Amino acid sequence: MRVIIGVDLGGTNIVVGAVPEDGSRVYALASERTPVQQGAEAVVQVIVRMIGACVEGTRREAPGAEVAGVGVGAPGPLDTKRGIVIFAPNLTWRNMPLRDRIADAVQLPSTLDNDANCAVFGEWWQGAARGARFVVGLTIGTGVGGGIVLDGQLFHGASDVAGEIGHTSIDLNGRRCKCGNYGCIEAYASGPAIAARAVEGLQAGATSKLAQYVNGDLKAIDAQVVYRASHDGDDFAKEVVRDTARFLGATIASVVNLLNPEVVVICGGVTLAGEQLFAPLREEVRRRAFEPAVAACRIVPGALTGTAGVYGAAATFKVQRWGQV
Amino acid sequence: MRVIIGVDLGGTNIVVGAVPEDGSRVYALASERTPVQQGAEAVVQVIVRMIGACVEGTRREAPGAEVAGVGVGAPGPLDTKRGIVIFAPNLTWRNMPLRDRIADAVQLPSTLDNDANCAVFGEWWQGAARGARFVVGLTIGTGVGGGIVLDGQLFHGASDVAGEIGHTSIDLNGRRCKCGNYGCIEAYASGPAIAARAVEGLQAGATSKLAQYVNGDLKAIDAQVVYRASHDGDDFAKEVVRDTARFLGATIASVVNLLNPEVVVICGGVTLAGEQLFAPLREEVRRRAFEPAVAACRIVPGALTGTAGVYGAAATFKVQRWGQV
Repeated sequence: MRVIIGVDLGGTNIVVGAVPEDGSRVYALASERTPVQQGAEAVVQVIVRMIGACVEGTRREAPGAEVAGVGVGAPGPLDTKRGIVIFAPNLTWRNMPLRDRIADAVQLPSTLDNDANCAVFGEWWQGAARGARFVVGLTIGTGVGGGIVLDGQLFHGASDVAGEIGHTSIDLNGRRCKCGNYGCIEAYASGPAIAARAVEGLQAGATSKLAQYVNGDLKAIDAQVVYRASHDGDDFAKEVVRDTARFLGATIASVVNLLNPEVVVICGGVTLAGEQLFAPLREEVRRRAFEPAVAACRIVPGALTGTAGVYGAAATFKVQRWGQV
Repeated sequence: MRVIIGVDLGGTNIVVGAVPEDGSRVYALASERTPVQQGAEAVVQVIVRMIGACVEGTRREAPGAEVAGVGVGAPGPLDTKRGIVIFAPNLTWRNMPLRDRIADAVQLPSTLDNDANCAVFGEWWQGAARGARFVVGLTIGTGVGGGIVLDGQLFHGASDVAGEIGHTSIDLNGRRCKCGNYGCIEAYASGPAIAARAVEGLQAGATSKLAQYVNGDLKAIDAQVVYRASHDGDDFAKEVVRDTARFLGATIASVVNLLNPEVVVICGGVTLAGEQLFAPLREEVRRRAFEPAVAACRIVPGALTGTAGVYGAAATFKVQRWGQV
């Protein structure tokens, strides 16, 4: 049995696991904090160490497995053909030849693709979008990423940028986004943006028990805290979640009109919000998008929580090296 | 030589012409007003009569040409496989089996596709986007339509809706659009929307010579009048054109981030505005979209003014009946 090591490099965590080529499971899964502050070299060293541990762990869990290579998912924009991260704001990287650095260090064939592309491809391969012909995915975490799968292939566009749904503007005069644009959905619905909207509301005098969840330390409010308070019935937290659904729904309606996908899959911590988010989100899309497009489209949470990126990085390795998943 | 009759059915005009299968030119081109008020039957009768005249004209212009069939581009949403216009607000049609009605009347094999898809496909086949792998097109007229060409194929999505870029929202709380959504670019940048914004400004007291172009009859202001006044140096008309560029630029930036096309082609009367529109539009996209995506993308006016839809309808006939263009 051949396995592929999937690496999901995020601005917050690095997740590594070994996926057999049939995609049936993941071996030796591990997660560590990304040492962003210590610079690119430190990050590469952690990845290389985690790959080594994953190889050893896989040998224990699946004796006889042959490690065929390493698929890496990293924030972009990047150049998949040359294996280079062109620019990663959350890592403060520029022109980092990540693929070859890893390949040289672990002496295994390696590939590189966008982290959000990988997560969506993973959900198409083994998760909530399995078998669908036209898939659009969003990954909601530190930022909002995305990916497009058409006929079983990741769609990369002319220069590997395709899928950046997080930088769809829902308000051309809206919140300034880190990318330089205004009104990007990332500026409203990323984890930090959800938390920031909640804190703004509290500071403007909203009545809420949210502060009690963090012992009065508003800086400790994150999106998960908002979901928990909403789930517990806090009216203001519910409002923040409903607004998030409205912002995401407006974005997805535009994408549904433009790409008419069979599945929109939403990955990341936001799935923990469950139906309190997804029910109004679907309603918002129904309200805004063309009926025949809405009727053709399922909007679902990702099924591979925490591992979609690992599955997808392994799948992109298969495509890049072996021609197909 | 085989020719295909291309029919471009719009809410304002019907354009018909015969295109040889190599797409080298168009024979017997004719345009008539669409008799919308007289109902669907009257519209079909005009189309059938125009096809008959086109067949005769082609025989005169190109003796020996064999008419292989009819490709029809019509407003949607529609069902290309069954040849049915599901709903066309500007024509007030519902569930109209247009393809077979025409095929039966003219006794020629016929196909149906979305009018904006056809125009963009025409620009890819013989116009400003010729040879490009990834093309996104907008058609700006009574409404704002669009189309996506990937690897030489129109992308239809799961239920023939794909390409509706006109219903991308640039302001989730913005102007109500005919489609029911809010802030669609169609509500800002269609011909009538451009005129409406100009009239609103005049009624709110803007200083402008615009009214003089229409002898004081503000209802007679259309987008072309705005372009003309802008070209003549009228400051308020220039502002309306600059705003149009900003709205279109914000839309196109989102699409460039999402689809990373090689070419964005903009078709329709708006191309008459020329560089006074396209220069600020490109600047707006550059300001908003990811640099590697902007660098990979040309933003150009359509080259087949008035005939893109005819060329594209003929090309979609070739694809649907013969498997390729």
